Formats: sequence, structure tokens, C-alpha cells
Amino acid sequence: MATKTTLKGIAEHLNLSISTVSKALADSQEISDSTKLLVKTAARQLKYRPNAMARGLKSSRTNTLGVVIPNIMHNFFAKVIVGMEEEATKNGYSLVTCISNESLEKEKQSLHMLSDVSVDAIIISLTSETQETNEIEHLKDILHYDIPLVMFDRANSDLACDSVVINDYKGAYDATAYLLKTGCRNIAFLSTLNNTSVGNKRLSGYQAALSDYDNTLVPKVVYTKLTSLENDLGTFIDNNNIDGLITTDESSAIYSMNTLRIKGKQVPEDVSVIGFTDGNLARNYFPSVTTVKQQAEIMGKKAVQIALKNLNNKEQHEPVQEVIETELVIRNSTKTI
Amino acid sequence: MATKTTLKGIAEHLNLSISTVSKALADSQEISDSTKLLVKTAARQLKYRPNAMARGLKSSRTNTLGVVIPNIMHNFFAKVIVGMEEEATKNGYSLVTCISNESLEKEKQSLHMLSDVSVDAIIISLTSETQETNEIEHLKDILHYDIPLVMFDRANSDLACDSVVINDYKGAYDATAYLLKTGCRNIAFLSTLNNTSVGNKRLSGYQAALSDYDNTLVPKVVYTKLTSLENDLGTFIDNNNIDGLITTDESSAIYSMNTLRIKGKQVPEDVSVIGFTDGNLARNYFPSVTTVKQQAEIMGKKAVQIALKNLNNKEQHEPVQEVIETELVIRNSTKTI
Repeated sequence: MATKTTLKGIAEHLNLSISTVSKALADSQEISDSTKLLVKTAARQLKYRPNAMARGLKSSRTNTLGVVIPNIMHNFFAKVIVGMEEEATKNGYSLVTCISNESLEKEKQSLHMLSDVSVDAIIISLTSETQETNEIEHLKDILHYDIPLVMFDRANSDLACDSVVINDYKGAYDATAYLLKTGCRNIAFLSTLNNTSVGNKRLSGYQAALSDYDNTLVPKVVYTKLTSLENDLGTFIDNNNIDGLITTDESSAIYSMNTLRIKGKQVPEDVSVIGFTDGNLARNYFPSVTTVKQQAEIMGKKAVQIALKNLNNKEQHEPVQEVIETELVIRNSTKTI
Repeated sequence: MATKTTLKGIAEHLNLSISTVSKALADSQEISDSTKLLVKTAARQLKYRPNAMARGLKSSRTNTLGVVIPNIMHNFFAKVIVGMEEEATKNGYSLVTCISNESLEKEKQSLHMLSDVSVDAIIISLTSETQETNEIEHLKDILHYDIPLVMFDRANSDLACDSVVINDYKGAYDATAYLLKTGCRNIAFLSTLNNTSVGNKRLSGYQAALSDYDNTLVPKVVYTKLTSLENDLGTFIDNNNIDGLITTDESSAIYSMNTLRIKGKQVPEDVSVIGFTDGNLARNYFPSVTTVKQQAEIMGKKAVQIALKNLNNKEQHEPVQEVIETELVIRNSTKTI
């Protein structure tokens, strides 16, 4: 790579002072228009890149927020980012996004890199591995260096930073209670979110709703991944007689409905199905899917709002957790009451 | 924000020279282990951040690739990024991703920001607005500053840089030819990719296959968006008698099948449907969807490989366009031959 052009290089080339060059590039009123044109033309010819890192070091702001998501294939995270983009743009900020791919190591690298490029704040949803191991030193490091940190969706309560989550417990509770009201008694819970705070809270909500209704009802849980769902659920259905199914995301609701169809079960006549997320897919599937709406875009907006608030007021405060309520959107994959 | 700790600050605090502090933090052999420990402890206490930008300015590499995608809600782009992540990680690089949201202005901002944070190379898929207006000065700027630039999927042939695309023309041609072979004669083309290079090539492939087969067949095109697809296609079906439909992405194939169902049309008995992308959804829908497989992950890997190659060899070369062939995956949304 060729040597980078510096302010000094431009100054020498034009026989001007470094200060004049710097002011000309910054459009200072002290500099005449003709000198500005001269300097800017030379800067371009010499391929000078006004490095924001260098500028960032001085102004201490880059107007960039770093985001770390665990999985780009989940429609939910894509929607959260749409909300974040909108709020960030409104406030004159840009987003850069890293994908940790459910790997603790990749999460560490992402945080390191975002801190290296001097983002003003970091917004993160933790990987399942981070939540499983409870290893959070790398997150504490971010706080130690006074970089505002906001967690969303998958948060860790041992960390002294703000977070936005949905009321996962109540979302699952309401979904289960609805199935019970429509007459289902053998309701299974299918989770692709094993070992995450979100998955655990939904499981608790499901269990609580069952036992509140009738404490002889037995919770039945299927842990799976999207890639093995058809097999795992298929085997489960062969061995268990169910009339209701709650899944922890939208894709798994749809894959489950397909598996049920393969097994000769009608939805909702034989088995009612409720998913989480409420994307376009749930609305457009046949039958359309009853879902727990997670307000992903609202969550994204809130996370950015909190990050910007903390950025502008760096005084220590007790961590605040904002909880967004879910909504049960009833469609045709469940029976009517 | 508190003043940032500098090397000088640490040096003064410990009564050491700046050079000693700098070498200690860089683990130089010239410095004793005890001094290194002393310096590193002080650096942490004083919240010194060894700024990679500053480091980047010296080493001229940040080991980071910047990616700009037009739309995060398209499963195709998510899959491309999965492929990019894999290849980047394998080579010791990190990715940062920006979403331009189909806006030329946002694309410009993203490029500016990525160049500001000194990514080593930029990989981009253009927004529909960029392709529509053919405004590419901001992309030429990136090339002017010797930052390796690679375009993927949506490329612009006026730019002197490498690109990876799929054979969109042949993908659409093959899909149309297959429908003709199964007996369809009134095949419509539904596009959510108006004004993009990709959409135009697919349209041409569709038109060519029709006229090659029988030049009295009339192409019928529906331009729409996912949000208005149900209405637009519904109106079209009310006014046109079709027996085949090709859509430009996976979601629109599924939304279309739902719209057809609402209109009382059976898939594939009344209307055969073929989509593009081939995600999990196409495989798991009912009926499962015949699709043109776009090899998204392979495209992501290739794009990173080209970027790294250009990074390590900055000599001028004629732009190379790599073309990935598609594959028609036949499932149950089409009739058999």
C-alpha cells in the first residue's frame, strides 16, 4: 500500500502551513474560498483521506453506534435492526453491525473491533454461548472503558448496564392460556432457544400457565434447531399425543406446521400452533399463524434511544431494564374460543 | 466525556519514557516483564484504550472488511453474509455491515463511514436507487482512494472494479423453459426488483425463453412490493388468466401462493409457481416451492476472496466479473413434465 498522504504532505506540496491546510479542509471562515479550492483539489489529487479515526481521537465522537447480533438468519433480529436504523438516522447516527453467530469468541472479537474503531456506544444481544457460560469479562471491559453499552432481547442481569427486553414470560403465559381456553390440554413447547435468557423465560411462562390452570397438566418440551426440527418434532409426535404447540420463533412455527402436515395432523383441527415474532410470514402462511408479537422494531428504537441518552449523560446510574409488552395476534392456526 | 488517557499520560504517571510505555504495551522484548506488568496495570487503571485507529494509521491494516447491503429483510442477503463471515473468519478478518435500506443517500453515508473507520476493503450490493439513477461518483471515490471495492449481486458495469453476480438471465430462462415444458402457456413474471440490474436480467431471461419457445406468447409482468403484493397480484389475477408464475424472490413466491389460494386457484394444478433464492422456507412451505437456487453463501465467499486478493495485490487490473451459475430445484409447486 502506498504511503498515506498527511496534512503535512499537502502543506509541503502547496507550500502552505499545516494549520492553513487543516482549516481549509474544515471549511474555516478564516480561509479564502480560493485557498480552500486549492487545498481541496490537492488533497484529492494526493489521495488524502481525512481519517475519521484521527478526527475521532480529537472530537471524541464518531457518530457511529456499534451493534452486535447473534444471528442474521432470524427475522426478529433483522426487524430490530430496521428499527435501530430508523432511530439512529433520525438522530444523525450511523450503525455498524457485527454478527457473532452464536459464538462467544466471535462476540469478543466483535466488541474488541467496535471499541477499536471508536464507536460511540455499543448495543448487543448476547450469544447463546455467552448466556450458557455466563462469561462476561469482555462486556465488563466495555463498561470499564466508559463505552455506553445497552443489551437488548438477550440480556445478562449481572452486568451493570441498561437493557430492553420483551416480557417473554407473559408472552408465553398468554399464548398457553389461550390454547387452554380453546380446549387444548396436551400442549407442547418447542424451543430453538435452549440456554438463553429469552428461552428460559418463555419456558417458565408456559409452565406457569399450565400449572395455574390445572396442576395435573404435564409440560412437554422439545429442544431443537431449525436444521433438525423436522426429525426431532417428528419423533416427538410419534411418541406423544399433542393438541397444541408453542414454538419460540416464527420459522419454527412454520416448519412445525409442515412437519405436522407430513404426520397427517390438521392445523388447527388436530393440533393448534402458536409462534413468536409475527413477521410477514406468519400472516401469509396457510393457515395464517397465531403469534406472540414481539415488537421488534420498537425494541430496536428503544435500544438506540437509551444508548444516545447514556452517551449524552455519562453519570453513573442504576441499570434500568425496559420491558416491552407482547401482544397475542390471533389467526387461523388456533381454534376459536 | 472524560479526557482520553494517552501514552504520554501513562508515561508521566509512572515516570517512564513514552517510548518505554509504548514498547511495554506492544510486548517488546526490550522491556522486562515486571515493567510490562506495571505499565499494563496502569494503562487499565487509567482506562487507556490502545486505539486501533491510531494503530491502523501506522500499520495501514485494520483486518476489517466493510459490507454494504441494500436490505436486511431479504433472506438472500442474510445468507450471503453468512458465507462472507465464514470466509473472512477463516482468513483472520472481521466484517462490519451497513444497511443502505435501498437509499442512495444512505449508501453514500455508509461508504463514507466505512472509509472513515479505515476498513481494508469494501464489498457492496447497490441500492435500487443507485441502479435507477446510475449515480456512482461516491463509488468512484472509493476507487480513487485505492480502497479495494467488490460488488456483488447488484453491480454496475460502468465501475472499474471486480464483481460477483449470479447468472440471473439463465436462471430465469431455465425456470420459464421448465414451466413451458410442463405445459404452461400463460406464464406471468412478478418482480419486486424493478430498476435493479438483477431484476432486469431475470426479466430478459423470462422474455427470451417465451419467445424462443413460441413467439406468439405474450410476456405479462407485475411490478410490486412485498407490502402490496397481495393487492397487486390479486387485481392482476382478476384480469388475466395465468397458469404459471415466476417471482424474483422467495418471500414473494410464498405470498403469491397465498394470494392464489385466496383467489381459489390451486398450486400447481391451476397455477405453477417458481421463486428465486431457495431458503429453508421454500423447502418447508406447503406445497414445497420449486426455486432457482442462487448459491448465496458461495457468492458471499467469492466476494471476500476477491476482496482479499485485491488487498494483497493492488496493481491495476481489468475488472473481472465472476458469474455463478444457478440451479433449478424442482419441488411440488410445479407440475411434472
